[in-house]
Amino acid sequence: MAAKTKLALPVVTTENREAVGPFLIVCEHASNHFPRTFGSLGLEAEAQNAHVAWDPGALPLARALANALDATLVSAGISRLIYDLNRPPNSAGAMTERSELFEVPGNFALAAAERQRRTDLVYLPFHAALHAEIARRLASGRRPVIVTVHSFTPIYFGTRRDVELGIIHDADPRLAEAVLAEAKARTGLNCRLNEPYSAADGVTHLLRLQATPYGLPNVMLEIRNNLIADDVAVAAMAEGLTPVLTAALDRIGRAAMERAAV
Amino acid sequence: MAAKTKLALPVVTTENREAVGPFLIVCEHASNHFPRTFGSLGLEAEAQNAHVAWDPGALPLARALANALDATLVSAGISRLIYDLNRPPNSAGAMTERSELFEVPGNFALAAAERQRRTDLVYLPFHAALHAEIARRLASGRRPVIVTVHSFTPIYFGTRRDVELGIIHDADPRLAEAVLAEAKARTGLNCRLNEPYSAADGVTHLLRLQATPYGLPNVMLEIRNNLIADDVAVAAMAEGLTPVLTAALDRIGRAAMERAAV
Repeated sequence: MAAKTKLALPVVTTENREAVGPFLIVCEHASNHFPRTFGSLGLEAEAQNAHVAWDPGALPLARALANALDATLVSAGISRLIYDLNRPPNSAGAMTERSELFEVPGNFALAAAERQRRTDLVYLPFHAALHAEIARRLASGRRPVIVTVHSFTPIYFGTRRDVELGIIHDADPRLAEAVLAEAKARTGLNCRLNEPYSAADGVTHLLRLQATPYGLPNVMLEIRNNLIADDVAVAAMAEGLTPVLTAALDRIGRAAMERAAV
Repeated sequence: MAAKTKLALPVVTTENREAVGPFLIVCEHASNHFPRTFGSLGLEAEAQNAHVAWDPGALPLARALANALDATLVSAGISRLIYDLNRPPNSAGAMTERSELFEVPGNFALAAAERQRRTDLVYLPFHAALHAEIARRLASGRRPVIVTVHSFTPIYFGTRRDVELGIIHDADPRLAEAVLAEAKARTGLNCRLNEPYSAADGVTHLLRLQATPYGLPNVMLEIRNNLIADDVAVAAMAEGLTPVLTAALDRIGRAAMERAAV
């Protein structure tokens, strides 16, 4: 069984584990690392560094938000091209053959055994670690608010994107709508609900898997990556978004967080 | 961390792992075992053997169905009074203080640390093992149909229950409605939809956690335990329910199983 060949893969890192704030921050596309066991998938350095391999700027922004909000941060340490942790194992996008302008030769016509190996080595341990953080909080009477942090490329298939902050929801729109209202009121960003992607594009798997079963408030944030391209920009974005998230949570009310479970 | 004190607890057993049929059978309340690390929770032998501690007959029935359907079986090895695997960690029912006529002294006013310990030692490994079975099938292009097998007591708080086979669904009623129709057509059982419990009673946590995020067809079966009280009765019930499940799956159509993921 592949599951028994436990490698010391940096699949998941949990920071600020003892944090006591209401938010739990997740960054699935934090890294463009290609561990030796998977190789480079036939990609040149250009593709390995491009937005198709990871979400540039997302990890430093997620970390700054986690620190400002006294939140735990769960992040991935492996490129999304090896396994996209925001996709189920039966999705073509989980181990995609192409992403925007790049083909991924190492993912062409993957055998079932290799899809299972990546599921065992990447998808399952990442989601088990995140599930454990959520379940332990629930066991102690806390209901975490799940916020995933992503970035997107300013130009996609040659077309310029105007949206700067995308706010995406799955079945429960409450927190996303509150974040939209507060972001419009408190920032100068071009904010849009369910842009540049929406649940219909299959981008809410993590929310559906980890937040919805417990009725936890949740939202996916997408920041245009040219706005978080260096440390100064990241710090400014975090400073802008921290009060947005706090005010959004106040707006939906602590009642939503404390909704009694059966 | 409690998670690091890994005990050889019989939290979860997987049988027929290499089975190739479409069903994946789950039995959360299979056992009335009280491992030493948790003790007897202050219960006398009567309570430890009663339906409040487990679902009598459910495991042999689940095993007979798994064999007849060429299905994998995932079952728990610990009493539901230590942790009810069909409840989230923030639910009072996960580590209940009383169940029907029995009080559970060892669960009175549990500290957060003990709730987390049981979550770490029971809830998380069971659900991780089940999640792995589901995810590995998805990775290889199969979409398992999730069937959980439970039993209920004929007399509850002194009242006799007429229902013999309860068929319970969560958000997606397709398979449950098909099972109801086939069970009525093919058996003499008193069959009811969402009796003696329903999702409103919080009994569909496992379906919500493991099946719904992947859009997998799913159903919870509740059999009155006097109908599966010995090996002969179990064999007869399995013989009756096997064609019901197969026909129900045909009824909803393979299309439901093969619904493309994004």
